[in-house]
Amino acid sequence: MGVLVVGSVALDSVKTPFGEVQDALGGSATFFSVAAAYFTDVSVVAVVGADFPERHVEFLKSRGIDTSGLVVEEGETFRWAGVYGYDLNDRDTIYTKLNVFENFLPRIPDRLAASEFVFLANIDPELQLSVLDQVSSPKLVACDTMNFWIESKREVLSRLLKKVDVMIMNDSECRELAGEPNLIKAARMVLDMGPKTIVVKKGEHGALMADRESFFSAPAFPCEDVFDPTGAGDSFAGGFMGQLAKTKDVSAANIRRAVIFGTVMASFCVEQFSVDGMASLDQADMEDRFRALKDLSNFETETKGN
Amino acid sequence: MGVLVVGSVALDSVKTPFGEVQDALGGSATFFSVAAAYFTDVSVVAVVGADFPERHVEFLKSRGIDTSGLVVEEGETFRWAGVYGYDLNDRDTIYTKLNVFENFLPRIPDRLAASEFVFLANIDPELQLSVLDQVSSPKLVACDTMNFWIESKREVLSRLLKKVDVMIMNDSECRELAGEPNLIKAARMVLDMGPKTIVVKKGEHGALMADRESFFSAPAFPCEDVFDPTGAGDSFAGGFMGQLAKTKDVSAANIRRAVIFGTVMASFCVEQFSVDGMASLDQADMEDRFRALKDLSNFETETKGN
Repeated sequence: MGVLVVGSVALDSVKTPFGEVQDALGGSATFFSVAAAYFTDVSVVAVVGADFPERHVEFLKSRGIDTSGLVVEEGETFRWAGVYGYDLNDRDTIYTKLNVFENFLPRIPDRLAASEFVFLANIDPELQLSVLDQVSSPKLVACDTMNFWIESKREVLSRLLKKVDVMIMNDSECRELAGEPNLIKAARMVLDMGPKTIVVKKGEHGALMADRESFFSAPAFPCEDVFDPTGAGDSFAGGFMGQLAKTKDVSAANIRRAVIFGTVMASFCVEQFSVDGMASLDQADMEDRFRALKDLSNFETETKGN
Repeated sequence: MGVLVVGSVALDSVKTPFGEVQDALGGSATFFSVAAAYFTDVSVVAVVGADFPERHVEFLKSRGIDTSGLVVEEGETFRWAGVYGYDLNDRDTIYTKLNVFENFLPRIPDRLAASEFVFLANIDPELQLSVLDQVSSPKLVACDTMNFWIESKREVLSRLLKKVDVMIMNDSECRELAGEPNLIKAARMVLDMGPKTIVVKKGEHGALMADRESFFSAPAFPCEDVFDPTGAGDSFAGGFMGQLAKTKDVSAANIRRAVIFGTVMASFCVEQFSVDGMASLDQADMEDRFRALKDLSNFETETKGN
């Protein structure tokens, strides 16, 4: 059955020191889907406006993504515009126009109700909960969120956390949710809220994964040419869930590998605008970076003679 | 011959959310020496005032550290005071009283001139250069610096960089020295300035090592109880240089292991005030954390069945 993702499909206008794009294909479900489709079948549930360019739908279909759950409504598509400074860690949002996304009520088509792997991209936690009511018995549910929901809907988020297997969030969100600056403690505290596993995305510093037994520290891919960080987190989630769904293996060892595949997809994402960096990869491209990440973080425990 | 370190021996007054100390044993050469002494012989060249408590000298000697290069001068010892907030990444310096350190002119005793491993802790780069004039033909020289020298003595620092083998600095210093926010690019740019290897310390995010052939990403030890980060960087350098000097192996593979031993020593340092966290370890303590770091960062490249 592959992966079901529920999130946003949007039109992004992004300016970085290296260039700019207007109304480019964006949104959490988009980045996730394009990344995950390299691993497994992907079905997307989202909403766009009547203005959404048909060529974007065609592109998603060309990647093998099931867009039958992409609802078109009267009105305009969700639009986001942002500007990144020279230090790409900082960005300013110019505008967020929710448009048709404002009244998005995700409806999971019957034939997707038995999805085994479900990713709840960053949307209102009430909607994330409503998605879980519509799927029968998923093997693994992963979830993203953001500071806005942590601050405005903490109680709903708490209920959601009890129902997800893997929480994927960035480091500042993890610290904020836990109310604890020490990231190791904060990750443990989020685990105490329900999920079996937490994956903390740290951008250029890689990712930290924790379950009740152990921590895993994954390096970032050493990208010298970060062109546009937009979508990196959702591309990470796409590689992560794609690997899990492809192998149907949710062991701790495979979750580590999934974190690395997430890292690989994020590294391709940031090298170009929109989903361009992930538009035409082949299996060897991904395996090369997977192995490079192994070499990058490997050290021998014993001296092999001198 | 072990390791020669030239730097500061100081009295630190530190306040963190977890407690405070007055005039505790501190200084770059101190943290470095205590860490390195677990691996190899260490000789320290530094200056203190007549007020420096004899018990601190006795402590260093008890750790096997050669303090015959510790000059006592009329006047007061270098004192630093700082306060850390709840987020231990931020600290405010309350005062820096250089005292006798202000006129420190490191003189390397003749019997240390043949030192094979030399660590130039963070002091004026002119003094770091003068140390190199006094050592005959070291096998490996490593060097630390800080933003103050990058801003005020860039030309001298450039000359120094051509003479050191390993530059050890934190991420903001690396970005500032290179004038480049992308850390991967910045690290390469620092390598172009001379050193064969750069080790970038990233605090809770671990360390990044680069030479002309490859990058190495080391995780941080997952410390849940960071009590006082003061001295972590110098303790890291002590573990790093200690491992190299102990093995006399400066291969890329052993430099990776040295980065991990640096990480181990920094993790012990931050768990208590001053050098208390490193005061009485045994070999097994260090090996346990070394192996824990291996487990923390390890992932299998192949699925081993299901």
